[in-house]
Amino acid sequence: MSSTKAPVFAERVSVEQVEEGAELAPKFDADGLIPVVTTDAETGEVLMHGYMNREALSRTIETGEAHYWSRSRQALWHKGATSGLVQKLVELRIDDDQDAVWLRVDVEGGASCHVGYRSCFYRSVPFGATFSGGAPALTFEETEKVFDPQEVYGDAPNPTKL
Amino acid sequence: MSSTKAPVFAERVSVEQVEEGAELAPKFDADGLIPVVTTDAETGEVLMHGYMNREALSRTIETGEAHYWSRSRQALWHKGATSGLVQKLVELRIDDDQDAVWLRVDVEGGASCHVGYRSCFYRSVPFGATFSGGAPALTFEETEKVFDPQEVYGDAPNPTKL
Repeated sequence: MSSTKAPVFAERVSVEQVEEGAELAPKFDADGLIPVVTTDAETGEVLMHGYMNREALSRTIETGEAHYWSRSRQALWHKGATSGLVQKLVELRIDDDQDAVWLRVDVEGGASCHVGYRSCFYRSVPFGATFSGGAPALTFEETEKVFDPQEVYGDAPNPTKL
Repeated sequence: MSSTKAPVFAERVSVEQVEEGAELAPKFDADGLIPVVTTDAETGEVLMHGYMNREALSRTIETGEAHYWSRSRQALWHKGATSGLVQKLVELRIDDDQDAVWLRVDVEGGASCHVGYRSCFYRSVPFGATFSGGAPALTFEETEKVFDPQEVYGDAPNPTKL
């Protein structure tokens, strides 16, 4: 990737600039990260919630493919490099105070979750009138895995941390 | 709100329990927060990205209305208490490693952004073939505000921080 196409992020100078302006002035947190919501461009389903550092956001803009910062591996992460499940950007949005990113993507292969499901959010939680107190029992909204994690990732360490 | 209906969160004891189990065992970060993605249940549009602490998640489950933790005000935040734009839950999901929440909501009044737009993500960023390098120029995908923030919030401090 040529560095001549690297995006330049603006300095954050005023609330009006950040909220109402046309400059990309993202806010990275104390760890240098910005949270990212990734949805399926066709269905609107939330596929995953991740993080980008400055380099991951730059690479995503340059290439049109989702790059994240893996907090568990502490490494730049081109989604799909291992699994083949690359996320091609359809749209990239930034929120009002520019401290969160929304990616609308097409996923080649149809899955985004390391556990093997289509979405990482494969379980629902009861609430309100349907919740009677105590320990909420989760419902699996996806019951079929799209791929076998063992086949795809082999013995790579599981990113889930307790 | 009666405390007898308060949800009990499970302890996180194993990766298998967290990923494949039916117990709600959310992971709160060093600040006691979990990130939340909120989408319009009808359109799939991402309305906002926020945070919950333990109490906000409990209240959300108990009441079926979105509660957040306001980092700028450092206070529990019943969304819509000031603006009237309450978010009624249609579905509540948790992700694979239970460190992110997805709310699908109906918004009374149709807006979720303190700037006055429907979604907080009202601007898009160029990428890939449509990006030629330098400072990315944002495009406003929403051009009409749904409400006048001055009328709704008056002189309340703007939550956007530089």
